[in-house]
Amino acid sequence: SSNIRLAVIPGDGIGIEVVTEGLKVLDAAGVKVEPTQYDLGAKRYHATGETLPDPVLDELRGFDAILLGAVGDPSVPPGVLERDLLLKLRFQLDHYVNLRPVKLFPGVETPLGKVLPGDIDMIVVREGTEGPYAGAGGVLRKGTPQEIATQDSVNTAYGVERVVRYAFAKAASRERRKLTLVHKTNVLTFAGDLWQRTVNRVAEEFPQVATDYCHVDAASMFFVSQPQRFDVIVTDNLFGDIITDIGAAIAGGIGLAASGNVNPDRTAPSMFEPVHGSAPDIAGQHKADPTATILSVAMLLDHLGFAEASARVEQAVADDLVERQGAWVARRTREIGDDIAARVAG
Amino acid sequence: SSNIRLAVIPGDGIGIEVVTEGLKVLDAAGVKVEPTQYDLGAKRYHATGETLPDPVLDELRGFDAILLGAVGDPSVPPGVLERDLLLKLRFQLDHYVNLRPVKLFPGVETPLGKVLPGDIDMIVVREGTEGPYAGAGGVLRKGTPQEIATQDSVNTAYGVERVVRYAFAKAASRERRKLTLVHKTNVLTFAGDLWQRTVNRVAEEFPQVATDYCHVDAASMFFVSQPQRFDVIVTDNLFGDIITDIGAAIAGGIGLAASGNVNPDRTAPSMFEPVHGSAPDIAGQHKADPTATILSVAMLLDHLGFAEASARVEQAVADDLVERQGAWVARRTREIGDDIAARVAG
Ligand SMILES: CC(C)[C@H](C(=O)O)[C@@H](O)C(=O)O
Ligand SMILES: CC(C)[C@H](C(=O)O)[C@@H](O)C(=O)O
Repeated sequence: SSNIRLAVIPGDGIGIEVVTEGLKVLDAAGVKVEPTQYDLGAKRYHATGETLPDPVLDELRGFDAILLGAVGDPSVPPGVLERDLLLKLRFQLDHYVNLRPVKLFPGVETPLGKVLPGDIDMIVVREGTEGPYAGAGGVLRKGTPQEIATQDSVNTAYGVERVVRYAFAKAASRERRKLTLVHKTNVLTFAGDLWQRTVNRVAEEFPQVATDYCHVDAASMFFVSQPQRFDVIVTDNLFGDIITDIGAAIAGGIGLAASGNVNPDRTAPSMFEPVHGSAPDIAGQHKADPTATILSVAMLLDHLGFAEASARVEQAVADDLVERQGAWVARRTREIGDDIAARVAG
Repeated sequence: SSNIRLAVIPGDGIGIEVVTEGLKVLDAAGVKVEPTQYDLGAKRYHATGETLPDPVLDELRGFDAILLGAVGDPSVPPGVLERDLLLKLRFQLDHYVNLRPVKLFPGVETPLGKVLPGDIDMIVVREGTEGPYAGAGGVLRKGTPQEIATQDSVNTAYGVERVVRYAFAKAASRERRKLTLVHKTNVLTFAGDLWQRTVNRVAEEFPQVATDYCHVDAASMFFVSQPQRFDVIVTDNLFGDIITDIGAAIAGGIGLAASGNVNPDRTAPSMFEPVHGSAPDIAGQHKADPTATILSVAMLLDHLGFAEASARVEQAVADDLVERQGAWVARRTREIGDDIAARVAG
């Protein structure tokens, strides 16, 4: 098959370091990749004031996939790069599935005292293009004692149904075949009702999948006390943001949490990125763990149809994680990348 | 001093069992209480269709405080009792501070493998009368493929400032004097900006308090990986709902999590309740842990100015929790209440 046309956005801080290792592993997997680097992020913002110019966005549409490190820097006003670059990519490229596996690999230390690797093995299907992330809302009488600020969650049948359908298909493909809707239907009644009705309706097409419901507060608790409860979760953009960070915490930390911003209809390239941020505090110190990025690369390969290469990368990570256990010396970013790449190359 | 005029709403399921023990301990504390029971909850809803009739709400206004067990039953459409009873009480009685201590008592088992009691000792000050709980929003073209459902978070300078001010005062009264705002300012920009500006402004009046900020997703992760980070947290209604359930999970479970719905201006009675629900699955089996309710009673006493009695109840719970450790036999609801009451009585 022809080369993968890959857009690479290393971004800021440790994003640059971890993406280097991700590309190294991709290369080791023997899949032919043609990478094009994009210098989006804090530096470009400071140099030109640009975050994601339209011509760049248009160019990005032509790629097979995007690999992103992390964006954000304390020198940029908070939210600017998040909204005008990261979220803009997710929304404009219609990444309506934000796929976040939460899996405890053998050998990985979890803060939970009593769970075993098999106890934590779920996939969160987070909606990626609407909800409270829509940017709707406003402010009146700003700066006065009469100020009022609203923030509106926008949920459409179109947007909810497509992500729910994806989640059911994902659940149907797994061993446990269980799908849990996480929401807050008892309080967010308008949005919650649309989500619940949609799940009920699509469930009829998937009789082999057991469906469940859990309020987001209870789910957050169960992530800590009974993570075994969950197989596939479908949830809204904001709840997904929160619970996947709890997921990262229980499954060994943010250094291992991978994600895919997926456009299942393939009308635009999907984007793969570690869940962690740019971590300016440790940037340039070769301390960042590139594993989350490497696992994101495995998701990228799987998305593009290279199932065997994807499995090989994931297995290499799994083996590396077992070997880390009890190791005396922490490896540098590059060393972890080298070791995993060597395993992948076989 | 004169008797405490206490309205008691046992509610449904285990609410009834735990409130009995709460009253027992209140009695043992030697504070004179004049309780009046209200049969609000599922039974009354089924019998009369009423959740919280206006005359009852008016009567409740005349009490010094309210003790609530839990409301909710599978026989009632989801959300009805939550919204038309529980949330109506919080909103109508202007409980703008939802106070939720997250404290790991010695002897209590936490799912976190490596934390010690001193590591988890925080108070979450959750806003209680606005935000996404306002009930604002709506639905268009319901049931069609063109359906759109919105859910609006309403935040006012008035509402945010009063809870932020309360949180600063609370932080100033504690040893660490640290206040963390938890929000999602990088995405929920309108509401987040109001919250952040308010914290910045009120901070000037409390130079002795160190202020910090944490996105809700990161905070949720830190509850699991570094709970030591937090002393007092101030946050919006929905984020507070979620993180206090994580708090309950890390501090020994929902059986120990107390809360106060506080009206600090005392224009209406405050209401104290365990964070847990009515747990229909174990109702009537004498299995419910009344400790959360008893700790809520301690908060009630403190709110009404009985600081010494409050401290005695909390100490009795602390001692009981140490004794539970390593006990072979689980006690029934009533036995736990008896034991704690005996300690309180001295
Ligand atoms: C950086 C931020 C906008 C983003 C989000 O909220 O989605 C991040 O937290 C994530 O989870 O990818
Ligand atoms: C029952 C529900 C409406 C309530 C809430 O969301 O506030 C509960 O979860 C709580 O935390 O007290």
